[in-house]
This record gives sequence, structure tokens and C-alpha cells, in this order.
Amino acid sequence: MRHRSELPFQLPQPDEASADAVRERSRDVLRPAGALARLDEVAGWLASWQRTVSPSVKAPALIVFAGDHGVTSEGVSAYPSEVTAAMLRALREGVATASVLAGELGATVRVVDCGVGAPTGNIAVEPAMDRDRFDECFELGRSSVREVEADLLVLGEMGIGNTTAAAALAASLFGLTADDWTGRGTGVDDDTLARKIDVVRRARERVGEERGFDLLRELGGTEMVAIAGALVEARIRSLPVVLDGFVVTAAAASLEVLRPGALDHCIAGHRSPEPGHQLLLEKLGMVPLLDLGLRLGEGSGALAAVPLVRMAAAGVTKVATFEEWGLER
Amino acid sequence: MRHRSELPFQLPQPDEASADAVRERSRDVLRPAGALARLDEVAGWLASWQRTVSPSVKAPALIVFAGDHGVTSEGVSAYPSEVTAAMLRALREGVATASVLAGELGATVRVVDCGVGAPTGNIAVEPAMDRDRFDECFELGRSSVREVEADLLVLGEMGIGNTTAAAALAASLFGLTADDWTGRGTGVDDDTLARKIDVVRRARERVGEERGFDLLRELGGTEMVAIAGALVEARIRSLPVVLDGFVVTAAAASLEVLRPGALDHCIAGHRSPEPGHQLLLEKLGMVPLLDLGLRLGEGSGALAAVPLVRMAAAGVTKVATFEEWGLER
Repeated sequence: MRHRSELPFQLPQPDEASADAVRERSRDVLRPAGALARLDEVAGWLASWQRTVSPSVKAPALIVFAGDHGVTSEGVSAYPSEVTAAMLRALREGVATASVLAGELGATVRVVDCGVGAPTGNIAVEPAMDRDRFDECFELGRSSVREVEADLLVLGEMGIGNTTAAAALAASLFGLTADDWTGRGTGVDDDTLARKIDVVRRARERVGEERGFDLLRELGGTEMVAIAGALVEARIRSLPVVLDGFVVTAAAASLEVLRPGALDHCIAGHRSPEPGHQLLLEKLGMVPLLDLGLRLGEGSGALAAVPLVRMAAAGVTKVATFEEWGLER
Repeated sequence: MRHRSELPFQLPQPDEASADAVRERSRDVLRPAGALARLDEVAGWLASWQRTVSPSVKAPALIVFAGDHGVTSEGVSAYPSEVTAAMLRALREGVATASVLAGELGATVRVVDCGVGAPTGNIAVEPAMDRDRFDECFELGRSSVREVEADLLVLGEMGIGNTTAAAALAASLFGLTADDWTGRGTGVDDDTLARKIDVVRRARERVGEERGFDLLRELGGTEMVAIAGALVEARIRSLPVVLDGFVVTAAAASLEVLRPGALDHCIAGHRSPEPGHQLLLEKLGMVPLLDLGLRLGEGSGALAAVPLVRMAAAGVTKVATFEEWGLER
């Protein structure tokens, strides 16, 4: 039986003509060619997905997906599961970290409840969710993107226990051992880390040779499934996305494994100290914009990178060319 | 004979009480302690120099100092000296890269002519300037800071030939060879790089055992002397500064060598690919916020980091604490 949730047969490809025009202008503006390096690359990428020779970030949007994880019953987190609901409220009220950072950027914030209070199965012993719930969460992610007006999207997550889910998913997608993918998340002690590694190992063994969306359904949280749906919808709408840390990137990676190139509309906002995130970025061939030790989630690391995307665009579109300024190169 | 330009006997020290209060709040807000890592450190640093428990970046200011370098007669740059004056106009008109980035941040821009069209001496064979000119430029830097209203300062520079001056100054301040400190600046070819290294070597040998401000006077450009003055004035006013790339950091380093701790009010905005900048950051014990390959100058790399400082502050001051949100830690 196939999932109803599928990747569309044909994903939109980048508008290379717009990207080329922006790259060409970046070589003609009043600075040595290549002097803005990575920022000029980002400007080209932004142009290719905004499909314009005048890329800009005027309407960034943050969508935070929240879900509860049955695996917390294994004692893998420093926080009780109830914290998910409290943080969801704080995000909505604008007093959580990501809401505050979004406010500084002029980004809209949407917080999507993917079933907080209705935890997934304990992935060490059972599937996280059945196919109906998977499809529901995937569609929730897609519809959340349809309902925002944005020119740049940041996806965030909140869910006590979800770095365990991310580690199990990443290990199943890419191999290596549970040790390689498992870190301290919100800051667990040595005993909890040992339990967490054991849970990741058991979860991975349980799913065996499952592939594709079945891995995400077996191991991911509801918020991670919604993120996968949101990424697909963003791609269909040619909306560029800044990826956050380990959990978001693990959900995203499940798409890339299913269809190489499925994340071409995404850049990595930052590198988290969570060891699994570093590994995932390597597997995906992504170089993050920031490396500041941020390990919060909520979309916070990606939000911190948004001003760089904004400045990258302005640094090409608003700077005069040598010719416009009456200078020879 | 002593310079009239001197470091004040007693430099203001950071307000550790404000910094401590901000650090304490950063551990109490709605996230795992330490989850914003480097950003929380930046918030504490900002509080200590703004001398408030509510640090913020509402009025960032960019001051760009421009000067011409006699050493360009040695053929060390990819651009003719006339470009300095053209770029000074572009910065003033708001069409240069740094002016555009500043505009995106809501930062004010001040462009200070430190004698464009009146180049310094060719440092390979003679002092860059005499003591009167040094004092004049140093005071110009100080007065430029007095004339801006700012809560965070970015200092930038423009001057064809000034990475040669920066390399000679850094080599004289810290030792190592001319090769270690000399890079391609705006992007010179192999032959030009070889000439540049030779010039740096000759300049360094010429100044021999000179120390302190005499090194900056012998080797630095007028814009670099002004930057040193601006940094001293910022310190006196307890105004935090984000340092830009190689040239700004070389000028700054001359203060740190003269008086360890003189740059405590500064953070490194970014790491430039110019090899000398990497070395300088190591010598100064500074870890930059960004590492994106930017190699423009004008203050652009520091400007790119300003949103991080702004978000760091908001991430402590505007996020609710667990207690305010009715949660136990």
C-alpha cells in the first residue's frame, strides 16, 4: 500500500535566468568581483526561487510546528512532555525566543499544533503514527504554507523528545551508528544520553529496511511530518526556505533521500552543536550560514540567518554598478 | 618626543553588574540554559558597555574612513588610487555596498575623508606621515565618534593599497614573516602579490624596533589612524564596537599592543579570507561572529553581523522568564 502523501512527480526547478542575471550584476556592482562571496551566492539562490531579478526579503514568515513524543516515556529528555504545550502557548503569545527573534526581523509567526497532548507512539517499540495520522500531519504542513504570505520561509519545531526522533530518523536514512547521531539535545546528563542512544538503536533496529515516507512515519514526530509537508508545499510554490537545526533538517533529509534535489529551494541557516546536525549537513552537502553554537530549535537558528539573506539581496539589487557610477572596471 | 595622541591613562571598564544581570536573565528565560550560546555572550558584552540591564541596538552607526596610500606607486593593488575618491562619493551617495547594508539595518552612515587625494608616504621607503598629520587624523577619528548618536558602532575603511599597510603594521606589531601577513586584498595576481610581500618586508625592516603609535604612524594609512582614534573615543564613551576585517582590525591591534584590554569594548564581526586577518584574530583572542568569505572592507562584514547583536539583546530582554510564564525550571 502506498502513502497518499507523495512527492509530486515533477518538482519546480529554479529559475536559472533570474539567478544568472543576479550573479552577473553581482560581478558588475561597485566592489571587486566575489568580494561578498557567500552572500552573492545566496542572492543568486534567492533570485532563482523567487523567480525575479530583484530578489528581496520583505515578508519573511516563521511557521513553528509543535508535537508531543511518546518516546519521552523512555526518559530521554531533560524536560517533561508538558513543556511542549507551555512553549506552544509562549510562542503564540510572542514571549518565546523564536517569536521575539521573528519580531526583530518583521517576520510573521504562525504556530501550528500538530497534536500536542496526543503524543506519538514510543518509537523504541512501536510506530510513531499510522498512515492516516501521517497524511493528516503532512497535509497540515502543506496547508500551513498555503495560508502564509511570504517571500522567505523559516520552519521551526517544538517537541520535547524530538532530537531522539531526529537521531533515529537520520540513522535510518543514512546509516552509521546510534552513537554518531545522538547528542545531548536540550542538555541531558550522561545517564540520559546513554538511554537516548539505546532508544535510537532500538528504534532503528525496529524499522529495519523500511524506506521513504515510511521511515518518517515510523520514527518522526507529527511536527516533523508537517515540516516535510511544508517543505513540499514551499517547493511547489517556489518559495525559498531557510532550514533550522537538527530536527528540521532530519525531517527535510527524508525528502532529499526520497528525491535528490528536493531541497534545492532550501539553505542551511546555521550549524547546531548537536553532532547529528553536523553529520546531516555533510550528507546533504549544505554549508550553513551561521555557526554560533545555537541549540534551541523553534526556528531560532534559521531566523538568526534571515538578515544575511536580506542583506545578500540588497547587496546586489541596491548597489550601483561600475557603469551606472560612470567608472571603468 | 612623545605623541600628543595618547591612550588615556585610565580607560573605562565594563559595567559587570549590568552584564551579570543580563547573563542571569539569559539563564532564566524560556529556553534551556545556554541554548543561545554565543548570542547570550554577546548580549552580556553589549550590556556591559551600554551599561544597562536592557541592552538593545536601536541606533547603529557606520563611520567609514577613507584615505589614499602612497605605497600604491609600488604596484601593490589591482585598482588605481583614484578609485578611493570614487568610492568615497559612492558611499556618501548611498550606492556603495556598505551604505546599502547600513540602510537595511537602519544604521546611520558617516563618511570621513582623511585626506583622499593627499596620499601618505610610500611606506616601503619612508614614513606614512609625520606626527602632525598623525595627530590630526587621530583627532578626526575621535571627533567623528563624538558627532554620532549611536548605541552600537561599526567602523569601516576605504583606501586602495591599505591591505599592504595593514600587513606591514601587523607584521611589525606581532612578528612572523611578510608572507604570513600578506594576502591578495581586492584580488591581485601572483606577480602583484609577490611585489606586495616584498613591500611589506621592506616596510617592516625600515621601521625596525619602533613601537606603539610610531608604528601606526610609520605604516598605517590616515584612515587607519582615524580608526584608532575612533576606537579610543568609543571606549571613553563606553560605546560598543563591531570590528570589520583586516584593515580595521590591524589598526585596532595597535591599541591592544599598546594597552592590553584596550579592545574589550569590541567584538569581531566576521572573519575575512585575508590570511592576515585570521592571524590577527588569533593574536587578539577574538572569535568572529561570521565566516562567510567576505573581503570587501567598508565595514561590510561588521554590518552583516549587526543583526546578530540586535537579536542577541532581544533574545534576553524580550523573552519571558520561566517564572514570569508560571513554569518551574
